[in-house]
Amino acid sequence: MLRLAAALLLLAAPLFAQTDPLPSWREGAAKSAILDFVAAAADPASQGFVPEPERVAVFDNDGTLWAEQPIYVQATFIFDRAARLAAADPAWATTPALQAAAAGDVAGVLSGGTEALLEVVNAATTGMSVETFVAEVADWLATARHPDTGLLYTQMVYEPMLELLDLLRDNGFETYIVTGGGQDFVRAFAETSYGIPPQNVIGTVLETRFEIIDGVPEVMRAPGVAFIDDGAGKPVGIVRGIGRRPVFVAGNSDGDKEMLDWATAGPDPRMGLLVHHTDADREWAYDRESAIGGLDAAPDAGWVVVDMAEDWTTVYPDR
Amino acid sequence: MLRLAAALLLLAAPLFAQTDPLPSWREGAAKSAILDFVAAAADPASQGFVPEPERVAVFDNDGTLWAEQPIYVQATFIFDRAARLAAADPAWATTPALQAAAAGDVAGVLSGGTEALLEVVNAATTGMSVETFVAEVADWLATARHPDTGLLYTQMVYEPMLELLDLLRDNGFETYIVTGGGQDFVRAFAETSYGIPPQNVIGTVLETRFEIIDGVPEVMRAPGVAFIDDGAGKPVGIVRGIGRRPVFVAGNSDGDKEMLDWATAGPDPRMGLLVHHTDADREWAYDRESAIGGLDAAPDAGWVVVDMAEDWTTVYPDR
Repeated sequence: MLRLAAALLLLAAPLFAQTDPLPSWREGAAKSAILDFVAAAADPASQGFVPEPERVAVFDNDGTLWAEQPIYVQATFIFDRAARLAAADPAWATTPALQAAAAGDVAGVLSGGTEALLEVVNAATTGMSVETFVAEVADWLATARHPDTGLLYTQMVYEPMLELLDLLRDNGFETYIVTGGGQDFVRAFAETSYGIPPQNVIGTVLETRFEIIDGVPEVMRAPGVAFIDDGAGKPVGIVRGIGRRPVFVAGNSDGDKEMLDWATAGPDPRMGLLVHHTDADREWAYDRESAIGGLDAAPDAGWVVVDMAEDWTTVYPDR
Repeated sequence: MLRLAAALLLLAAPLFAQTDPLPSWREGAAKSAILDFVAAAADPASQGFVPEPERVAVFDNDGTLWAEQPIYVQATFIFDRAARLAAADPAWATTPALQAAAAGDVAGVLSGGTEALLEVVNAATTGMSVETFVAEVADWLATARHPDTGLLYTQMVYEPMLELLDLLRDNGFETYIVTGGGQDFVRAFAETSYGIPPQNVIGTVLETRFEIIDGVPEVMRAPGVAFIDDGAGKPVGIVRGIGRRPVFVAGNSDGDKEMLDWATAGPDPRMGLLVHHTDADREWAYDRESAIGGLDAAPDAGWVVVDMAEDWTTVYPDR
């Protein structure tokens, strides 16, 4: 029996090898470009070979790995937290911005500009250790649901991108998130949702301070922004956090432009990929004119544009 | 023959398993503590078991992984570069601090305090891309030699610590450097010398800027310090760069105290290790009274103190 099982396994091996690593991607230019790039990168005999330590792949998060409509998930978390803090202590909302946040009046906060938004971020998400904050985000994500789909936010990650992350890792790539969103926020779910550990998440960071609290050393979230990992900040964040120029970059909006420009300006082989939100039925359709983030792809830059409606058979995981 | 070879391999396996993973460490309390900690961390049946993703080990660099006497290697590099820039262009040294640096007058620069030192750092090491800077450091390290030993600086890494890094990695630990020195400087040799890739090096960083230069996007080193990864900055650097509290921490000086305090304050198992420079014959002997960095170990904190003269059979690698 053991010999028979071994023989069957040997027979089955070629079948496994031929399994489609991107089953949620329709045959087409985008899928072919990805498969060709990855196969070449891992093949020492190929012109497109990339030595393993240089196989660095970076992904934007909002709109590239999960949905970002109608507002960023992180914003929903912050407003939700502001409302809960205000409910627990009515004296909490001491300013118009905090009062608007406590009432769930997003437009009211935004009318106060960046300063008002930062006021809410500071009041609702600082003064606790980073470890406590990450645990609170994870708790919130365990039950918070999207207002339109009714899905958990973590169910609104893109199945085709999960397959792409696996494909890259199976071929020796190290995968990273480079997000304009909060680094601590994304670290709370990136390992579970994407298989990307905290040290591979680079994002916007608030000030952080070492403090001794009741004799116990802690690293605390403090008011003020230490680093904005968006736009021209993304290449800087990559240099600081990784120290290698990525050979594979995926994004979806203007905030990803400099990262794509810089990474794909390196010596070949390089691949840039843009997720284009064209699917109003299964997700959302929006573009450069949208407020939240738009595609500003120059197809002449040679980046591969993914048409969600055309290229993906599935958007969200079936689980 | 094939069967015989296989049988011999099976016989040999227990012998390999008993090979001492720390041959440059003398039997004693420090070696035992390390071996016990690592074996327990990797053993699911042990009370000291640590799940693999949490097996994070961080090391200070100067004085912990390589020699730091008579001055930090990075300082020698900066002064050397200042002298070369001034030799190539006598107009380069426009200020007293730069003139002192160009003349190799370290004491003269230091008499101007932090401001003068920063002036030299800015003039000698900014205005180029981070990639170019890292390549220049690697070029310099390929030939620069220590004034007393005549060794390449990269030959003055500590063999017992290289063995310790290997032991940790062989047991599923991810190893990091957390240095008060320049992150870009240490990244230039950490992969070759320690097996630690750039993304696992956290250090002090100057300002970095995304710029388009002659149409080419670059990330440039710019004047000004963005983050000081020393003292209370080390736990902050770890939280930003790793996002997990290390379970194993090694350092040698006051600048490592907060990192040791914070890491070992987490729930057990934790291990803190201090390299004590007691070996005036083979390395240097210095302590808390020295200017460059001293041990301020509170043995009651439970950290293991390594006595270089007593605990190490070898200091530098024999290669």
